[in-house]
This record gives sequence, C-alpha cells and structure tokens, in this order.
Amino acid sequence: RINGERLWDSLMEMAKIGPGIAGGNNRQTLTDEDSEGRHLFQRWCEAAGMTMGVDEIGNMFARREGTDPDALPVYVGSHLDTQPTGGKYDGVLGVLGGLEVVRTLNDLDIKTKHPIVVTNWTNEEGTRYAPAMLASGVFAGKHTLDWALDKVDAEGKRFGDELERIGWKGTEKVGDRKMHAMFELHIEQGPILEAEGKDIGVVTHGQGLRWIEITVIGKESHTGSTPMHMRKNAGRGLALITELVHEIAMKNQPGAVGAIGHIDVYPNSRNIIPGKVVFTVDMRTHLLDKLNGMVAELMERAPKLCEDIGVTFEAEIVGQFDPPAFDEGCVAAVRNAAERLGYSHMDIVSGAGHDACWINDLYPTAMVMCPCVDGLSHNEAEEISPEWAAAGTDVLFHAVVETAEI
Amino acid sequence: RINGERLWDSLMEMAKIGPGIAGGNNRQTLTDEDSEGRHLFQRWCEAAGMTMGVDEIGNMFARREGTDPDALPVYVGSHLDTQPTGGKYDGVLGVLGGLEVVRTLNDLDIKTKHPIVVTNWTNEEGTRYAPAMLASGVFAGKHTLDWALDKVDAEGKRFGDELERIGWKGTEKVGDRKMHAMFELHIEQGPILEAEGKDIGVVTHGQGLRWIEITVIGKESHTGSTPMHMRKNAGRGLALITELVHEIAMKNQPGAVGAIGHIDVYPNSRNIIPGKVVFTVDMRTHLLDKLNGMVAELMERAPKLCEDIGVTFEAEIVGQFDPPAFDEGCVAAVRNAAERLGYSHMDIVSGAGHDACWINDLYPTAMVMCPCVDGLSHNEAEEISPEWAAAGTDVLFHAVVETAEI
Ligand SMILES: NC(=O)NCCC(=O)O
Ligand SMILES: NC(=O)NCCC(=O)O
Repeated sequence: RINGERLWDSLMEMAKIGPGIAGGNNRQTLTDEDSEGRHLFQRWCEAAGMTMGVDEIGNMFARREGTDPDALPVYVGSHLDTQPTGGKYDGVLGVLGGLEVVRTLNDLDIKTKHPIVVTNWTNEEGTRYAPAMLASGVFAGKHTLDWALDKVDAEGKRFGDELERIGWKGTEKVGDRKMHAMFELHIEQGPILEAEGKDIGVVTHGQGLRWIEITVIGKESHTGSTPMHMRKNAGRGLALITELVHEIAMKNQPGAVGAIGHIDVYPNSRNIIPGKVVFTVDMRTHLLDKLNGMVAELMERAPKLCEDIGVTFEAEIVGQFDPPAFDEGCVAAVRNAAERLGYSHMDIVSGAGHDACWINDLYPTAMVMCPCVDGLSHNEAEEISPEWAAAGTDVLFHAVVETAEI
Repeated sequence: RINGERLWDSLMEMAKIGPGIAGGNNRQTLTDEDSEGRHLFQRWCEAAGMTMGVDEIGNMFARREGTDPDALPVYVGSHLDTQPTGGKYDGVLGVLGGLEVVRTLNDLDIKTKHPIVVTNWTNEEGTRYAPAMLASGVFAGKHTLDWALDKVDAEGKRFGDELERIGWKGTEKVGDRKMHAMFELHIEQGPILEAEGKDIGVVTHGQGLRWIEITVIGKESHTGSTPMHMRKNAGRGLALITELVHEIAMKNQPGAVGAIGHIDVYPNSRNIIPGKVVFTVDMRTHLLDKLNGMVAELMERAPKLCEDIGVTFEAEIVGQFDPPAFDEGCVAAVRNAAERLGYSHMDIVSGAGHDACWINDLYPTAMVMCPCVDGLSHNEAEEISPEWAAAGTDVLFHAVVETAEI
C-alpha cells in the first residue's frame, strides 16, 4: 500500500502554488505559477532519486531506472496545470500519485524490470491555449510542434514565447520516447462513482469531443436609436445557438452533453448592440456516430437561425478527439488491482478528455478514477477525501508495478 | 452663417486623438486620450478669447462674456468622450459646434447680452463607468458627487482616481452654475432624418431609459463530465433573457427598443459550464407608462425563466431616466432658426440619452439634430456630411444667439 498521508501532504503543498480566490487553484499553463509548480515537482522527483528530462514543449519526464536495460518504461502521470478557477486535484492527483508510486517503491526497496517515468504533460486544460491536451497531442503526432508553439492566448502571447519565458522549454524532441505502457490516475469529475458508492472507476472508454468556435457577425449600432427592424444583433445569434446546443444534447440522451463555456462579445458596451460574438461550443458523447450526428445537426441548423435574424455564421473546429477505447490488458491490470486490494469498483466511461486518450493511440494505456464530491470539477470547490486519493493511488501502484514487473 | 470648413477641420483635428481601429475613435472617458482631447479644446477656447472653468467632476465650461453683467449665460455643448469603438461626431459635433458659434460671433464682432458658455460634459457615454450622462446627472442633482467618484471600471479603477490622474479634476462645486438656457447639437444616431430627407431634427422629446444589470448564477462545473440533468448553466439564463428582451421590445412597437450590449461570463473557459453571467439590459421608449410596463414584464418573466432551468436571478437598475419633454420656448427657437435659414426640418424624438435631458429638468433646454449616414452610430463607421454638420451648427448658432440676445 502507498503512503496516503505523504500523498495528501504533497497535494496540499502543491495547492499552495497559484491559490485561487475560493479555496481552489489558478495555476494556468505557462504562467509563473505553473513554473513554480514544476520546480517543486522536480525537487521532489530528484529527492526520490529520479532524473528529469524535459522536451521542447515542456513535458516533464522523471525516470526511475529498471533492472532490464532493454525494457521500455512504464509511464505514469497527468498534468499540473489548472483551470483559471480550478480544483486542487484535477490532474495534480495523477502526477503526485505517480510520484507516490515511486516513493513507495523506494520505501519497499523494490526494483522493477521496466523503468518507471512519472510525467507532467504541458497544457492539458486548454483554457489559455486551445485545444486541451495540447502537448500530449503533439507527443502523439496529432498536432505539429510549430502549430502548438504558435498558438496565442487572449492577450496575444505566443505559447512558444511563454514556454521560454517561464524557463521550461527543453531540448528533447517531442514524441521521441517509446512506452511499454501508460497509466493515468484522475478524479472522475462527474457524479457516478460517488452515487454508486464505488471507490474505483476502471475506465474502459472515454467520450469523444468537438470544440466548435463560432463567430456570429451582426452590426454594432446604438441600442437606443436604432429601430428594432434595422438591427443586426449578434447577441441573439449567441442566444439561439445556446438553446440549440442544449436541445441537441438533450435529444441525444443518455450519454451526450453540450454547452457553451467561452463567450466574447464585441464591443461589449451597454448601449451598443453587439456587432460580433465569438464563442465555443463543446459537444461530447462516447459514440462516434452520435457525436458526428450532433455536430452535423448544429452545423445545419445554426446558420439558418442566424440567417433568420440577419446575422452571419462562421464555424471552425478548434479541438477534437474521437471516443477512445483503452487497452484491454492495461484495463485488466487496473481492474485486477482494485479486486486484489478489496476496493469496490465499476467500469466507467470518462466524461472528460485526458492525456491518456492521446497516448492510448500509440501505446497500451489505461486510467484509474476516484470519486469527487458531488461530481464537481472545474470549480474551486472541487473536493475529494484522503481515502479516495489513497485508494486510487494504491490501485495505480499495483497496476503500474504489475506492468513494470518486479 | 457659421464657417463650415473651419468646423469640419476642427472635427477632423479632434478625431486624430484616440483613433480607433476602423476609422473611428476610442477616446473613452478619463483616459489619456480624453485628457489630450480636453487640452486641445481648451487651447481652441482660449484662442477664441474664452476663459475656462472646470468643476470637481471634470466638466469644462468655456465662457464668452456678455454685455449685461446680471444676465445668466446661455449654455451650449455636449461631450468629447467616445465609445470604445465610437464615431468621430457623436458628442464632438455638439462641443465643436458650440465653439464654432463663438468663433462666428467673434468673426462678426457680435456681442450678446447673455454670456455664452461652451461645455464639455464628462463621461456622457457611460461605457467605462455606468450610467451614461454621469457628470451632467451629478450637475442636475440626480446623483451625488461621491457616488460618481466612487464608481469603478472593469479593471477596478475608481472614477475619482482616474479623473485626478489625467489632471482634470477642477475646484468648482458641481452644479454651482445657473443657466438662462441650454442648447445641444447632436447627430441623430438613428435613420429617420436621412430617410425623410430632412436637414434638421427639432427635438421635442426623448426616450426614457432603464439599464438593468442582471446577474444569473448557476454552478460552474465540467462541460464534459457533468451530466445534463445536473447542470446549472448560467449561459442559458442569458440566452433566454436575450430573447425575452427582444420579444418585449417587439410587442411594444412602434417606438420601443431593447437589447443586451454588455455581457461578462465567468469563468469564461471552453470546458466550464458558465457559473455566473452578468449582463445589462437596455430598454427604452418615449412613453413613461410603456417603459415601466416593459420593465415590469421583464422583472416578472425573467426570474421564472431562470427558476425553470435551476439558476438564480438578481437585478439592479444601474441607469435610468424618464422620457424628457424639452422646453417649448427653446424648441421654438430651434424650429424658427431652421425655418428662417431655409433648412428642411421635422420634429423628432431622440432615441439616445443626452446631457441636455438632465439639464432640461433644471433650465429651459432644447436640442438640434442632424442626420447621420444609415442611422449608424456607436460604430466606428459613423458618418455625416460636412453640409449636415454646417446646417446643424447654423441652426444652433441662430437659436443660441436669439436666446442670448444681441
Ligand atoms: N480532465 C480535464 O478536465 N481535461 C480537460 C479537457 C476536457 O475538457 O475534457
Ligand atoms: N448619445 C449617446 O449615445 N448617449 C449615450 C447614452 C445612451 O445610451 O443613450
């Protein structure tokens, strides 16, 4: 068993970096706080006898040697970046859980055949720079490095420049690593495990995602003196599409979701009819055909709604992945570990995207989930119990060690 | 007749300060650009032999002496601040038109019995600091000075601090001036005069206004992993109220308008369901009962719409004025001037709010309007012709001089 107290202490220590305003964290990717969190993680890894490698997109790889010089490493990790109003566990648990796996192996003086590499993936959240899981996506060959480095945030700051500024641009070529397998521990971010009273989610599949950035253009003009029949109100385009997205998600129940989380209104003045609104639709479900059908319906109906009110519609996909199915062998290793340790468990579909989803396209991958209170995540009030964290990390430990072979 | 070329040159000179990104202006109140515009206006006033007074809220009063030491001044003016994406004429024409009145009197060596005071009112637009017409409102006793000075902008900067920072906080007590009358020339900001082919609008009334700042609170949570039935999406509250405002305005036709121009979404991340949306409804019509009815309908139906989708509703009035009826004598002076000069004219209701609306509560007041292309305003593409500007200023000149008596 892992040391649950040490794990919890490390979680609380990391949460001091980039505190939020309501008990959570604001440690967005490529900020000074992100850099500070990385330094802390590096110090802990080095203290645990690991050596750190950093690639050109800032992914961190802390390696514990194995006994067989020819054996490929087992990877274990997640991300340390957070949402602007994020929780203390989303991503962090998976990285520090990986560290705890190594610390426990050290305590027990166990050597594994395969090396173990604890990973912190850059910019998993995708808030500051869309899409989410950007750096694991580059690692997996989904995006080119240059495309990622050229992304700009809302203030016009380039991803590549910010990565250099915070001092975490490494020299290793992105994707230049082979894996024996990868495991990621993550909080569920949904309500199912808690409702079902299970300690462990054995993640068999994930939802696919489409992020569709829509630009509605009307005509900015005076709210008071422009007669109703002469208006081209881009805000109404946003309103109609907000409800359309909701309707499409509802009629694809069960197992489909959709909403608009990011909205920019121009020029955003009380007495100016919005001339332009830019917003991103997020649609997900675990069935590829259904996902494509939802997007097709949006793309057919939304332009008509806009046309009817005299505004124009443009759309661009700014993030996407198809529903992943995790590796049966790795999934079995997770399920067996939970069983062996006597934790209650169930198979589950991940509602969120994770770095593991991209890596799964290349190497055998699986995920362990633990419950979170009220299913709440992407909220500073995100909470888990120390027992849940310890159970998840125990299962992670056993799955990793079984796969890395003693 | 006034000197149309000189007027136009001054308009173009002022437009160089705080240029926009699309041919218009961004000279928002209490910015460095606002200060620079004020300095230019002051230099012009002093060159025309006037003396400048500035009050504690930054209102500027350039005085040309009259022949009767006991006669109250005739005021003429408008505002030099602009929207973030504003035009070159909204407000500016009224200030520089007033200056042109004095320059023309100087050319003709005419002395008036009443002094003439050309005024630049601070923060008419209300974008950076709601409500609009803030400083003329304090002058008219609608708001207290302290309340206005304590307003904060979106970046948390205090009105009073910004006023001092740009160096335009005067010593004169706000409202410590008595007026014989006031005239304001303004572009129509609507399509009627152009459509009717009239040079001059004789403004008899204005629309009343209500700005209702609404806060919808849901629960921020993960867009991917929160099941549809557990969501509290504040963005849907915005969507439903956007359409409700439109519906209420449409059913109060003719002569009513409504829209939402300002929207802030929290935390505004692609994969977070909005937990809070703050936005301002702008509703107007020229009939007080109708205006109150529109607001009552909004306040009755909007909370129910929110309740139905599990989000909470709060509302606060952040700007309001009742429909003004201008002074019959002053209105007649404008109409007679247009008639005498041979300009085509019609009576008109002002769609927008103006500083003249507040002053009208205290002293005899009227407005002159000139057409603008396509009725477009609060847009950088706002345009008028030099002929329209000259005609409006000619009428202003005659109305002012008739009232100030030779
Ligand atoms: N786990 C997580 O929140 N990832 C961010 C990507 C997503 O929106 O699913
Ligand atoms: N004239 C003008 O645009 N004033 C701003 C106040 C309003 O929104 O009517």
